[in-house]
Amino acid sequence: MPVVSLFGRRPKRVDVPRSKPRREAAANVSRVDFTELTPEPIAYLGQAAYLQLTIFETLTHAVASSPTTGAKETLSRAAGLSLAKHQALVAELAKRGKDPGEIMAAYAERIDRYTRITAGADWYETLVTSYVTSGLLDDFYRSLAGGLPGDMAARVAAIFSGADGHDLIVAELRSAIDANPRLASRLAMWGRRLVGDTLLIARSALSEQGHPNEARLEPVFTELIAAHTRRMDALGLTA
Amino acid sequence: MPVVSLFGRRPKRVDVPRSKPRREAAANVSRVDFTELTPEPIAYLGQAAYLQLTIFETLTHAVASSPTTGAKETLSRAAGLSLAKHQALVAELAKRGKDPGEIMAAYAERIDRYTRITAGADWYETLVTSYVTSGLLDDFYRSLAGGLPGDMAARVAAIFSGADGHDLIVAELRSAIDANPRLASRLAMWGRRLVGDTLLIARSALSEQGHPNEARLEPVFTELIAAHTRRMDALGLTA
Repeated sequence: MPVVSLFGRRPKRVDVPRSKPRREAAANVSRVDFTELTPEPIAYLGQAAYLQLTIFETLTHAVASSPTTGAKETLSRAAGLSLAKHQALVAELAKRGKDPGEIMAAYAERIDRYTRITAGADWYETLVTSYVTSGLLDDFYRSLAGGLPGDMAARVAAIFSGADGHDLIVAELRSAIDANPRLASRLAMWGRRLVGDTLLIARSALSEQGHPNEARLEPVFTELIAAHTRRMDALGLTA
Repeated sequence: MPVVSLFGRRPKRVDVPRSKPRREAAANVSRVDFTELTPEPIAYLGQAAYLQLTIFETLTHAVASSPTTGAKETLSRAAGLSLAKHQALVAELAKRGKDPGEIMAAYAERIDRYTRITAGADWYETLVTSYVTSGLLDDFYRSLAGGLPGDMAARVAAIFSGADGHDLIVAELRSAIDANPRLASRLAMWGRRLVGDTLLIARSALSEQGHPNEARLEPVFTELIAAHTRRMDALGLTA
């Protein structure tokens, strides 16, 4: 897929390295050195924590609308992993003496709008949403964690490297697609539709801090899209 | 409030002991010895686990419709505690070599119906639902845990004695009622409305096992209602 245009002035077109094997190309999102993109810690934590809470909410919608009790049980485990990440981020805010609800409130309106437009029309799309968006956002926030101050950098990177429940979601989606192959093209389309909005919300997390040179972020997004392509591959879908 | 009639033939009317101070009357639900009411372990775990999953779901609806980011954050913690209980019950099923999804599926239809009719019309009612129904059901299942085989009895009793997030829910509801006193009568009515359906679903958990003498359960329910009255007191509402 083409790199989504996120920036008004793009110095030059950066393509996903199609010629390399996909898996290798996407193997390490942290290959680019992002430590120089130092995020403001409270803003970073507030936005990341609230996004993680909405990913949890998206998964709970999928829990509630699961077609079988087994799927419900499986997805509740994925939801629990997602909630644990949120709670770990909130704990970092509390450790810095901040009221997490207050900090997150500043980002709620924009993120709620994002959550609404990426909600998905049914159980399958909602599952793809939680898989695709949590994948992109975890990669994004993990990429930036290196620029956080002190030992917070390693702790936060660990949060975004923790169990994500993707294996559980992939298993549910693969068996749904196997049972109904017509789902494949609809879900592939939905996956593409999610990338633009998700990269825009990720970008807004930085531009709010008046990041001086957005063009420097281009390689970050190239890496994110390569990893996204790998995740769609895991579903048997074309990114 | 009157004892809800759960049994076709009731030997005699049992009233909540109104003359005692409420708190004392409700202080110890396990005062009655229920260990003789031995539940079949797999059925017990399957129903309790699925009910706990629906309590989690009810809380996640409240998370999604929270009026403030602070409330959302608070309720997500309560949801996490509820999910942890569900997962502990599921772990007991797995320990006995059972597929939790399969076991729970047998109870899904009836419990889903119960969850639909107790969902509540808005955020306030949904919160009361999660508070009132989890209180009643936790008390009920804890009361019966003593009859489970071996060291499972103590482990399961501990699950139902764990943190329930009720303090978080009470704080949210109390401040909502303080800000809008007209909520009080509506929520009091809703609380009463929930008791009957919840005791019916609890009773059905036993009758399915062909429990020989349902009249012996009457004191269980008297205790449950006394504890329920105490919980409504904590909201400043009349049970």
